[in-house]
Amino acid sequence: MEASFLKRLVRSVVHPSERIRAARRARHAIELCHALLSERGEVSGAALAREALTAFRELSDAARAAYFDLLVSEFSPDPRRIAAAFEAYRSQPSSPEHLLRLQQEVEPPRQEVFRRINMAPGGTTALLAMRRHVLEGLASRPGWKVIDADLAHLFSSWFNRGFLTLQRIDWRTSAIVLEKLIQYEAVHEITGWNDLRRRLEADRRCFAFFHPALPDEPLIFIEVALTKGIASTVQPLLDLGSPVVDPRTADTAIFYSISNCQEGLRGISFGNLLIKHVAQQLGQEFPRLRNFATLSPLPGFRSWLRGVLDQGGLAAAPDGRELTEALGNLERTGWFEDAGLAERLQAALVPLCAYYLLHARKNGEARDPVARFHLGNGARLERINWLADRSKRGMDQSAGLMVNYVYRLDEVEENHEVYVKEHRVVASHQLRKLARECPLFSPAEEKRAETRAPAEEDPRWR
Amino acid sequence: MEASFLKRLVRSVVHPSERIRAARRARHAIELCHALLSERGEVSGAALAREALTAFRELSDAARAAYFDLLVSEFSPDPRRIAAAFEAYRSQPSSPEHLLRLQQEVEPPRQEVFRRINMAPGGTTALLAMRRHVLEGLASRPGWKVIDADLAHLFSSWFNRGFLTLQRIDWRTSAIVLEKLIQYEAVHEITGWNDLRRRLEADRRCFAFFHPALPDEPLIFIEVALTKGIASTVQPLLDLGSPVVDPRTADTAIFYSISNCQEGLRGISFGNLLIKHVAQQLGQEFPRLRNFATLSPLPGFRSWLRGVLDQGGLAAAPDGRELTEALGNLERTGWFEDAGLAERLQAALVPLCAYYLLHARKNGEARDPVARFHLGNGARLERINWLADRSKRGMDQSAGLMVNYVYRLDEVEENHEVYVKEHRVVASHQLRKLARECPLFSPAEEKRAETRAPAEEDPRWR
Amino acid sequence: MEASFLKRLVRSVVHPSERIRAARRARHAIELCHALLSERGEVSGAALAREALTAFRELSDAARAAYFDLLVSEFSPDPRRIAAAFEAYRSQPSSPEHLLRLQQEVEPPRQEVFRRINMAPGGTTALLAMRRHVLEGLASRPGWKVIDADLAHLFSSWFNRGFLTLQRIDWRTSAIVLEKLIQYEAVHEITGWNDLRRRLEADRRCFAFFHPALPDEPLIFIEVALTKGIASTVQPLLDLGSPVVDPRTADTAIFYSISNCQEGLRGISFGNLLIKHVAQQLGQEFPRLRNFATLSPLPGFRSWLRGVLDQGGLAAAPDGRELTEALGNLERTGWFEDAGLAERLQAALVPLCAYYLLHARKNGEARDPVARFHLGNGARLERINWLADRSKRGMDQSAGLMVNYVYRLDEVEENHEVYVKEHRVVASHQLRKLARECPLFSPAEEKRAETRAPAEEDPRWR
Amino acid sequence: MEASFLKRLVRSVVHPSERIRAARRARHAIELCHALLSERGEVSGAALAREALTAFRELSDAARAAYFDLLVSEFSPDPRRIAAAFEAYRSQPSSPEHLLRLQQEVEPPRQEVFRRINMAPGGTTALLAMRRHVLEGLASRPGWKVIDADLAHLFSSWFNRGFLTLQRIDWRTSAIVLEKLIQYEAVHEITGWNDLRRRLEADRRCFAFFHPALPDEPLIFIEVALTKGIASTVQPLLDLGSPVVDPRTADTAIFYSISNCQEGLRGISFGNLLIKHVAQQLGQEFPRLRNFATLSPLPGFRSWLRGVLDQGGLAAAPDGRELTEALGNLERTGWFEDAGLAERLQAALVPLCAYYLLHARKNGEARDPVARFHLGNGARLERINWLADRSKRGMDQSAGLMVNYVYRLDEVEENHEVYVKEHRVVASHQLRKLARECPLFSPAEEKRAETRAPAEEDPRWR
Repeated sequence: MEASFLKRLVRSVVHPSERIRAARRARHAIELCHALLSERGEVSGAALAREALTAFRELSDAARAAYFDLLVSEFSPDPRRIAAAFEAYRSQPSSPEHLLRLQQEVEPPRQEVFRRINMAPGGTTALLAMRRHVLEGLASRPGWKVIDADLAHLFSSWFNRGFLTLQRIDWRTSAIVLEKLIQYEAVHEITGWNDLRRRLEADRRCFAFFHPALPDEPLIFIEVALTKGIASTVQPLLDLGSPVVDPRTADTAIFYSISNCQEGLRGISFGNLLIKHVAQQLGQEFPRLRNFATLSPLPGFRSWLRGVLDQGGLAAAPDGRELTEALGNLERTGWFEDAGLAERLQAALVPLCAYYLLHARKNGEARDPVARFHLGNGARLERINWLADRSKRGMDQSAGLMVNYVYRLDEVEENHEVYVKEHRVVASHQLRKLARECPLFSPAEEKRAETRAPAEEDPRWR
Repeated sequence: MEASFLKRLVRSVVHPSERIRAARRARHAIELCHALLSERGEVSGAALAREALTAFRELSDAARAAYFDLLVSEFSPDPRRIAAAFEAYRSQPSSPEHLLRLQQEVEPPRQEVFRRINMAPGGTTALLAMRRHVLEGLASRPGWKVIDADLAHLFSSWFNRGFLTLQRIDWRTSAIVLEKLIQYEAVHEITGWNDLRRRLEADRRCFAFFHPALPDEPLIFIEVALTKGIASTVQPLLDLGSPVVDPRTADTAIFYSISNCQEGLRGISFGNLLIKHVAQQLGQEFPRLRNFATLSPLPGFRSWLRGVLDQGGLAAAPDGRELTEALGNLERTGWFEDAGLAERLQAALVPLCAYYLLHARKNGEARDPVARFHLGNGARLERINWLADRSKRGMDQSAGLMVNYVYRLDEVEENHEVYVKEHRVVASHQLRKLARECPLFSPAEEKRAETRAPAEEDPRWR
Repeated sequence: MEASFLKRLVRSVVHPSERIRAARRARHAIELCHALLSERGEVSGAALAREALTAFRELSDAARAAYFDLLVSEFSPDPRRIAAAFEAYRSQPSSPEHLLRLQQEVEPPRQEVFRRINMAPGGTTALLAMRRHVLEGLASRPGWKVIDADLAHLFSSWFNRGFLTLQRIDWRTSAIVLEKLIQYEAVHEITGWNDLRRRLEADRRCFAFFHPALPDEPLIFIEVALTKGIASTVQPLLDLGSPVVDPRTADTAIFYSISNCQEGLRGISFGNLLIKHVAQQLGQEFPRLRNFATLSPLPGFRSWLRGVLDQGGLAAAPDGRELTEALGNLERTGWFEDAGLAERLQAALVPLCAYYLLHARKNGEARDPVARFHLGNGARLERINWLADRSKRGMDQSAGLMVNYVYRLDEVEENHEVYVKEHRVVASHQLRKLARECPLFSPAEEKRAETRAPAEEDPRWR
Repeated sequence: MEASFLKRLVRSVVHPSERIRAARRARHAIELCHALLSERGEVSGAALAREALTAFRELSDAARAAYFDLLVSEFSPDPRRIAAAFEAYRSQPSSPEHLLRLQQEVEPPRQEVFRRINMAPGGTTALLAMRRHVLEGLASRPGWKVIDADLAHLFSSWFNRGFLTLQRIDWRTSAIVLEKLIQYEAVHEITGWNDLRRRLEADRRCFAFFHPALPDEPLIFIEVALTKGIASTVQPLLDLGSPVVDPRTADTAIFYSISNCQEGLRGISFGNLLIKHVAQQLGQEFPRLRNFATLSPLPGFRSWLRGVLDQGGLAAAPDGRELTEALGNLERTGWFEDAGLAERLQAALVPLCAYYLLHARKNGEARDPVARFHLGNGARLERINWLADRSKRGMDQSAGLMVNYVYRLDEVEENHEVYVKEHRVVASHQLRKLARECPLFSPAEEKRAETRAPAEEDPRWR
């Protein structure tokens, strides 16, 4: 994406006349931002905001880059004023006035510009787009970081959970929202309206967070299958032709996909809240539900494994040579159709996968990003599923392995603390046992894992 | 209000055991705030927020005061960390990271506490109540100013115009909202449901701003009468028995009452936005409307006049003595029923009132608070109305005088600038002439007033 | 009402010129009805319907009477065409065409006029008003009976239960609906908005049926109190100052008022449906509810008793003379404040009341209209309550007595059949015993009563 | 459809055991209908209705046929009772009671059964399905005509225009409604969601009538294109890739498709109402619209032409032989790509088409069904368009010809009357001239056509 952005940028500034025009446009749009902060902005707020918004929206790629540069250079705080305010504060730190003045001086005037642009119809949407553009260009323009920070600060305040609504999405939802699901689904692609429809039938649920200012834009959505028992393969859940079952007979809710929709809200997390709210809502609608589990990908497993093999990590193992050789077969497509080979690979891969989930680290944290997300939310690692995702993507990322994370109301808080404070992974006995069988395992690592016996009584998600 | 608050406070802390209990309660509620900022707060956000919210809500007056004290002492920024961040920033002001760190250090942790409390159902309502309590106690506890500032900062971001909806209020509106109008009306008291109903008939309009998180709570509302010609007395507009006229025959919209509803949003202004949005909406619904004017009180007129008289301000006037004597009659109730007296007083009061509106100042600004509001919005002073409000309140505040401010789409921006930058008051010829007739007038003051001829073409509020 | 209608009628036709004008107006409106049935009506349906509607609405009382007369004389079926259609039908009764033709010929063209008027905005409302006027005048113009029948026929089809929605009414409901409750409440007057508000608090429920074409008009509504135990007096339920209790602690739903709202729908019954739907809805919301009972007036008791006394009905009783004398005290207001007298009267009245409910008849049916309604719905008579309604109306109608009817899901069908087919009253043991103690009782009457033991298991209203 | 129904019927009754089972099922469902009319039906209305509904829904094809037979034989009126009621009526035709009794006796008890079934949730939907089944079987079971008539009678009362709502359908509409459009579109097939989406863009409009009891089921819908000038070919309107134009620049609304959705409502017409309501609504939204026209198919043209040719209708014409020969080319696919041939055919076909529209008759009415519909609504024939629909269907039905009917507010009433009373066709000068050029034309036919000059002033659809 970055590449194409740069390409577009380069292309568009090739002619000097073009560059001059872009600069003029950017200057015009920036002047409107200055006006917004002036007296005039005070009284004709909405009208001027609309103008400033339109000017921004119509900027070409090149002009937008110039605009962002000006936002950095002309709307940042004044170091001298900050210094003065700091000196006053230092002389009397307990004075509310001094602290307030310091706070005001360090807040970039940009933030007020953004707050005023937000007053125009469509303002919030435009500001989300602005941050998307800033993030896109950040690698080549690190100075834009301050714009990003200002927008992120505003968004984390505006998109406070207290202002979001959890909405069920089904076949009664408007097409304008439904087509967004098709567009934003990031885990298991939705191939079209028929696929979408199957995912919204009686034995499926879909929920999303919405913000009142963006009624047609889901912020994040989650897809759930209501099943008997914890699903171990994903294809049946995605099968368009699968029969619809009576959801009242289900004992399990499988969270099989969760997708963020707004690039402009990157880093502002709703996922952990969404899972718990949905678990609660489902628990109320279906009192017979006993299990709330994910069926999750392991996006980093094969690349980690490749690294291990490249560094000869299995060489020291008793049968390291055969193992390494066998694992070489993963590069062949369709290897899993050879039953004998598949069996051998299962024996080798599953313990490696358990080891990967429990003990592979990156900066002290779980190496797998999906694991980080669910463990950080207080889930526990429950089960590794063999040949659970036979799609090309599933085979490429994790040799078809998937994992169930289980959410239990009585555990999430403790699990979360154990993981966040000590980076210990709460996992089932079975998974710990599998990890110990991995040739990479050393007993010292055992302390990184923990098994929690579920509480006697079973507090439900209601 | 302050008095009663103190009384309650005093009463409640009279017993040491009570004081100890209050302190314990406050400590408990504060610990939940600390927890909200901890790791635990991260994962069990909403549940913990609900707990923290409930703990706050159940505090007694004494415990709440202790709680606020702790919010000041335990959730303020750390001066040493601020100093360190400032030194880093000073050494390299252009570094985004240094600026961000400084911004983070000066932001009180309280703000994050409030953002997290907001995640609980009812959170926004509770935070508004919190600020109301803080404002109530501010006179005796000036240290709470920092809490007030933090909440005001959050609210001005959350209650951004872009998130508000303008809603028409009529007899189809829910009773839960309608009873708030009765409760919050601050200008012309609504005496009950029949009075309210008359104010929502076909020849009246009522609009309010709402925030999505407070669907049952108007933030501010405005009442409009659709009339023929600019109304000069308010009692007919408020008369329950007045016949309902066909609004399509009206040429004038009279804004006769505007009331803020949320003490917790003090200082966060929506009024100027509301008037203009309503003018636009009315202009679209009724293309025949030509005038958009207020019929406004002059809440400070008589108290200013008393000051003038007390200081012998009229002594130097040609007939100062008689004038002063005549004005003494204002203290008698019912003076206006004596036709001869009324006539004399009218001749004396109207020029004084014109002078008051155009030239009386407080800190350079117009002395009358209602005048400050409308002039700051870009309205112009149009006309003084004699015996326009014969209610007790109207007689007490302004000897029954009222004034029309006129809003014209083609003027508001310039009027606003002239007033805000130079504190010059845009007024009709007639009013300027009246002010010159006032014995207090000195020609040097003339430059404070300005008359704007309306533009040839008449851009409508649509 | 009839009287005032006649008076108005007489007054309005006193001047011949007035009579001529009324006739001309009626003729004009009737011509529009003819046009509606013509070709032109076919194509410009809605526009013409609007015209016809307006013409009807603007008729004076006299003109309306003339209009109804014309509706009878010009839009009734043609006896010769009916005769011809009948002959064809008689010759071949099995022919669908002959039957259809006969059906068409007997249907008055009025019905099609009404169906077409209904196409105009506000048509349904106007037709309800039309029937109200017809009913009002029926006594003096018996010929209008055919208009009444046509409208009743249409309404019973249009207001089919399948098209009605059951809506909860609470303080969030629009004022336009709420004021209708105040206006239409027929059992225990609502004295104003405060009274209404108490009836919509958390421990009360109010439900109404609505038709989609009349969104602001409840058709019938019921008021419920959620209590502990079956209430025996009504004043506490109506007390504005009574504390609001947590409805989740209630075990009983008391239906204390049910009111029809639309005179134009007279004879089209929704009441029995409403009670059962509400019972179901409450049973779902509050699983702890065990009893669904009314607290009902006995509007005919005292007038029946007066009749009994006037005919010397108690003369033959052992202590008939004292009894008759004691009952004479009922005419004194405030008799119940004399404890001794009240005790004596209680001993006398309660058995009489039991007898009245179980055995007093009118055309074979229960004499009390409220008893007829609830027994016909399948309720059972449960308990007589002494001094249960001390309001003037309650004392006047039934010497303060009220009665609980109980609705049990497992009984309503059988109770209904027993009552409707055999006019036997299902009542508690206690009530039957009391009735036997009444001096009027003769053993032969015993067969009119029945006691049903509730089923072992307790099928709830859910 | 009929064929397959019979086939299914035959198949299902092949085994005697099957036949017996079907009869038993039908009997069970019919008994529930009897119960609905009994006392029990009165009190447990909704519950019993639900049972009766379910029993009907679960009938097999064979059982359903048996059920319909029983509905005819057991729920028809009683000839003896009708005869008795008629005699009473004849003896005193002016007695309201006698007329009412006769009306009641001729109304089949079936109607009350249907009204009671309608009380169950989903009742209306089921009754629509019932009529669909009846219509499907009518050819082989003419006795079912009475059921059809009863349902049609009820539906024409229930689906009165006054109870319908006109709703705009766009991309914000729920998917459950949108997929019905794809399913029900009868004129120009919607090929999928992308096609649908193009038809709902800013320069298109779609409106439908809905009944409150069927919120997810459009009854009829119309598709409109907003264009500059009256469109002469349909493919550009249907082109998925066509650019979306600003609708405010349009001067013409082209009604290019109108589809009934509910087979169960056959014969209950909403189409004429829909067109006029939509014209009004569009006229309000876009004051610049000048023309409201259709672009309509001629579904009967080629089959009429074939009949003419087969009967040697053109033999007598001057160049009849060449003409006949040339027209033979229509059977070849792709003939229109041969420019010379196309030109010759155009010269031959257009006058024939004009003649067909103006003078071809069936039972005195216009022969073309679409012409009958629009002329009956008061439209006028404006223009024939050559190669206007090149789809296979368009070529098959009408050799690619299409026609514009124009709706003018000031004409529809008169046009309608002229057509309905005298079957004269209002057409443009140009079309009348073309018809005269047709070899089939005889001057005597001229009187069947009429040209109306538009009124001077132009009353808009608003």
